[in-house]
Amino acid sequence: MSDDNQRIILAALPTGRLGPEHFRHERGARPEPGEGQVLVRTLYVSLDAANRAWMQGATYRSALNAGDVMAGGALAEVVESRAAHLKPGDLVFADTGWQAFAAVPAKRLVPLPRREPLTHLLSVYGVAGLTAYFGLLECGKPKAGETVVVSAAAGSVGSLVGQIARIKGCRVVGIAGGAAKCALLTRELGFDAAVDYKGGDVRRELRAAVPDGIGVYFDNVGGEVLEACLFNMSVHGRIACCGAVSQYDGAAPAHGPRGIPGLIVTRRLAMTGFIVSDFDDRRGAALAELQSWVESGQLKVREDVKEGLESLPAALVGLLAGDNVGKRMVKVA
Amino acid sequence: MSDDNQRIILAALPTGRLGPEHFRHERGARPEPGEGQVLVRTLYVSLDAANRAWMQGATYRSALNAGDVMAGGALAEVVESRAAHLKPGDLVFADTGWQAFAAVPAKRLVPLPRREPLTHLLSVYGVAGLTAYFGLLECGKPKAGETVVVSAAAGSVGSLVGQIARIKGCRVVGIAGGAAKCALLTRELGFDAAVDYKGGDVRRELRAAVPDGIGVYFDNVGGEVLEACLFNMSVHGRIACCGAVSQYDGAAPAHGPRGIPGLIVTRRLAMTGFIVSDFDDRRGAALAELQSWVESGQLKVREDVKEGLESLPAALVGLLAGDNVGKRMVKVA
Repeated sequence: MSDDNQRIILAALPTGRLGPEHFRHERGARPEPGEGQVLVRTLYVSLDAANRAWMQGATYRSALNAGDVMAGGALAEVVESRAAHLKPGDLVFADTGWQAFAAVPAKRLVPLPRREPLTHLLSVYGVAGLTAYFGLLECGKPKAGETVVVSAAAGSVGSLVGQIARIKGCRVVGIAGGAAKCALLTRELGFDAAVDYKGGDVRRELRAAVPDGIGVYFDNVGGEVLEACLFNMSVHGRIACCGAVSQYDGAAPAHGPRGIPGLIVTRRLAMTGFIVSDFDDRRGAALAELQSWVESGQLKVREDVKEGLESLPAALVGLLAGDNVGKRMVKVA
Repeated sequence: MSDDNQRIILAALPTGRLGPEHFRHERGARPEPGEGQVLVRTLYVSLDAANRAWMQGATYRSALNAGDVMAGGALAEVVESRAAHLKPGDLVFADTGWQAFAAVPAKRLVPLPRREPLTHLLSVYGVAGLTAYFGLLECGKPKAGETVVVSAAAGSVGSLVGQIARIKGCRVVGIAGGAAKCALLTRELGFDAAVDYKGGDVRRELRAAVPDGIGVYFDNVGGEVLEACLFNMSVHGRIACCGAVSQYDGAAPAHGPRGIPGLIVTRRLAMTGFIVSDFDDRRGAALAELQSWVESGQLKVREDVKEGLESLPAALVGLLAGDNVGKRMVKVA
């Protein structure tokens, strides 16, 4: 049995901001797959703000504990299979965690077609793309001509949400941190306007950017930006609650945004949470539509690929600080 | 022109709790209806927590100002009509305000059938009944076997929400203030359990009362009770946001409940605000179903009728303190 399973352990749960000191690198044996399990080699690990939320407590999955291999979804390749429907060389999406090899129950693997570039299987054809697609269209229900606002707009999900909203005939405003990201949104990704939340009074700038009010707000961040959007929603507006990255990297927040439930009632808003697996039954049709938009050039895919398993801690810490543009991942093998 | 129009003026806008000192009684002339207007005599004035919210600022209607006749919906009778489709003696629902006579544009009147007892036209067949019906069934979408929780459960809307949820096969838990109201819910109105929010740790008592989690929460109160319910929602639970009476009688609250948006995402909740006029096109069918339940004895109607225009300020102040059971109104003529 080879001793080549590089892995990164969550050495300690953070109480404040996450840093590289919360991880340690170790080397261990390749796991042996049991009956019904598959040994996979990790190719690309996906970095997601939710990785940090898993350290705060139970979410849609159980909480992480100190000493665990750090959890994370990845594009992986089957090395050895003890399940009938998978064979060596097959590509899968799996929660391998941050390690070179993992033994995973076959029923928890999502088989993927081998489509180039492989990185798109983690971005536009992966969780990010499907999250943007279903969250915007099923929870947001945008109508042509409405204003759609998305936060973390230069991120993996946000950059796709804004472009899909444009395809659907909406006016699109992105909220992002810094002038460079805002310029990317309006100059390269077709957003109608961008608001720099690091640049001043986000509530006032947002108000100026949405003179007709917000029909759909796709929320990736929670906190003050959510509050600013709430106060600018149109009557019968929809808020698609995708995540709350502003609230993950520290203790649980002491309060929610003002305007809840007052504005929900008076403006008759609908605020709807979702996770992408709620829509698994319609995954195929969504992927086909996303692919048609990518191939026609209507949907531009931004990716931010780092190299080497050892770069994972810094890649996540940086993601939480907002230093990525588009889908961040780490190439492991 | 007779000088018999008793009326109550909102003499000053409250900054803290509303009290009788914010009103003054005066006598004036009966208004003369202009073209397209109708002179009505106020029979019963409806008391609603929203009356207080109108003093905080614009809601779904413009804000009230000091010096205005206090606004309020009422059951009224046409005295003189300058509109073709209404004649003296007709019953209408109108925002007469707190006065014996009002001249109201005919297009803002809702004609009502003369059905005894007349008070039911302001309770189960009025805004309260329709609010309970549409809010529960359209926003809450309860399924048989689910647990439905309603706050202000002994109030006009809450007492109907709980009973309708029972009719639909749900397990029903009411949250109300004080042992007497809680006993009313379980002994007379068929609720399965009641939680006294004045009686201790509402979050712990609520948790004990909903071992399977909450499928639908019908929120009349906002604030801490909303927060307690949020933390006990089931995956894919629905929150129907009807009002926030805990937050009306004072300054606007500094914060919203914890768990927003975190719990909305992880449990995939839907939080939906509504006002009854959103469903005007289905009013007839709803009234027919409510009537069938009342006539079969499945739906018990609780009313709390005070006498005399001069009792209106105390009736509203008391309502905000929760001293009513069922639909509070004041008989004026």
